[in-house]
Amino acid sequence: MEDLTRYQQRIDSMLERIRFEGKPENLYAPLNYLMDLGGKRMRPMLTLIACDMMHGDVGRAVLPAIGLEVFHNFTLMHDDIMDNAPLRRGQATVHEKWNVPNAILSGDLMLVKAYEFMMKSEGQARIKILETFGQTAAQVCEGQQMDMDLETMDQVRVEDYLKMIELKTAVLLACSLQVGALVAEANEADADLLYDFGIYMGMGFQLMDDVLDVFGDSEKVGKLPGGDILADKKTYLLLDALERGDATQKAELNKWMGVKTDPNKKIDAVKTIYKQLDCENRARSKAEEFFSKADHLLDAVTVEKERKQNLREYAQLLKNRIS
Amino acid sequence: MEDLTRYQQRIDSMLERIRFEGKPENLYAPLNYLMDLGGKRMRPMLTLIACDMMHGDVGRAVLPAIGLEVFHNFTLMHDDIMDNAPLRRGQATVHEKWNVPNAILSGDLMLVKAYEFMMKSEGQARIKILETFGQTAAQVCEGQQMDMDLETMDQVRVEDYLKMIELKTAVLLACSLQVGALVAEANEADADLLYDFGIYMGMGFQLMDDVLDVFGDSEKVGKLPGGDILADKKTYLLLDALERGDATQKAELNKWMGVKTDPNKKIDAVKTIYKQLDCENRARSKAEEFFSKADHLLDAVTVEKERKQNLREYAQLLKNRIS
Repeated sequence: MEDLTRYQQRIDSMLERIRFEGKPENLYAPLNYLMDLGGKRMRPMLTLIACDMMHGDVGRAVLPAIGLEVFHNFTLMHDDIMDNAPLRRGQATVHEKWNVPNAILSGDLMLVKAYEFMMKSEGQARIKILETFGQTAAQVCEGQQMDMDLETMDQVRVEDYLKMIELKTAVLLACSLQVGALVAEANEADADLLYDFGIYMGMGFQLMDDVLDVFGDSEKVGKLPGGDILADKKTYLLLDALERGDATQKAELNKWMGVKTDPNKKIDAVKTIYKQLDCENRARSKAEEFFSKADHLLDAVTVEKERKQNLREYAQLLKNRIS
Repeated sequence: MEDLTRYQQRIDSMLERIRFEGKPENLYAPLNYLMDLGGKRMRPMLTLIACDMMHGDVGRAVLPAIGLEVFHNFTLMHDDIMDNAPLRRGQATVHEKWNVPNAILSGDLMLVKAYEFMMKSEGQARIKILETFGQTAAQVCEGQQMDMDLETMDQVRVEDYLKMIELKTAVLLACSLQVGALVAEANEADADLLYDFGIYMGMGFQLMDDVLDVFGDSEKVGKLPGGDILADKKTYLLLDALERGDATQKAELNKWMGVKTDPNKKIDAVKTIYKQLDCENRARSKAEEFFSKADHLLDAVTVEKERKQNLREYAQLLKNRIS
């Protein structure tokens, strides 16, 4: 078995070799630009880890793994247009650097290119991989639409929020693990366990993200705290507070929605209510609940215990990085 | 062998049965809305015609044929955003009826759904079909980008325009025929001949479109004449005139570019130059040249002559409809 550093090397060296080349230049350039902005490459890492864990040939998993990263970047390109975001990883977004029509079209091409990579897994598993990838791609669209819909809705339930993050974020991590298992020709039950592991892990991460945006160590998190509060984002914390707060607390939270002046006062006011309602701990234990469910699923995968170590280590690494 | 009416029935009845269903509702509704606006269903027709011609099982070609129609509608949904078009087949475009982010995302989903249908061809041909489809999808993006680029360029050569319409329009018609041949498990040489037939036929149609927008019988064409002139569209006629006109004629054409007042005077002025330079006949004979090349390629397909009759008839039907 290989180790995490080796997987990362494989991914990085493949990404360095890949250039999206074609004409017109301004159609292809945004693909390279966005891929070159970097990132943790979490999705391809999960694919290689799962493939190796299930006794697969890691080399054969690299191209579909890259396809999942290309797909992820396609969603970023289009989401940034929809969210009107000026920056991505500290650099201009594609629609800012080029323009909206160009970013729509380069995104479309990027989705086509993602499929191209997914097709590059040879053998038995190819059709299954394409099927699970297509299903996941549709769900990610559903998640983004839900996210946009929830932003404009008055009454959002915690339950809807959980469904949204499952679709928008968790299914792609789940699919990444499943693809690794499929390349390894693991049996269906194990591939499904890894898929479900990815769902719970992804949801746990998203909840921790919500917590840390408010209560995290800003140096560690790498951004100013309270960004979600200022942007009126419907996070787990906010929805939990709105569901459980009394009339005064709810009125106070609603009062601050949309307020753009006095950012520090806004953050303090909302945090005060979160503290009154113990929202941080509740979100943390919900996240822990997800992580623990994920753990149990991994226990059930029918492969030698030591082969699961890489995935446990990687999940822990991601958890430490954010918490 | 079946006849054209029967193919159309197969397509229409399958389209009637297909509903894109899922949540959120506003993600899925635009797909059904756009598909229900109708159209000639030219791409699936070509797939069924080619499949039957090559002794294939037409029933097995229906789902990939529908996939090509879904893909075509995906391009319409996104192109309409990029072109800022308010109407499509006389009805509100998706981004007008919903909004731009919604139309981007529903388009993305529609591309994923197109792939889903393309995967529904069983047997040997499936991977080849997916490969040719993916390649075509990328080329269609290239064509749309070229189209947008040409609109903002000062000096456009006829040659660039021909490359643009090949990518934007012809390759998908070509791919539709090839997919039919692949489902029929035709040999590669015949599948390639049909592909090339589609390229030339598609380019011929586009040139005829350009001619008829200016010189066509407005009742037959179904729109007011001169629309391309008023929109300053870089058509074959305009580029040919700009390449061959003398200094005065070029200056006159350039003078009218961007002018929004006095539409009738603009149309007359541009038409006068087209007549001076014999642009209509030149474009018509260029189109005929393409149709004749297409014809020769069809002659070379190694199947009984009478089996080619449906495709000839359908091409003729499309030619009559527009000329």
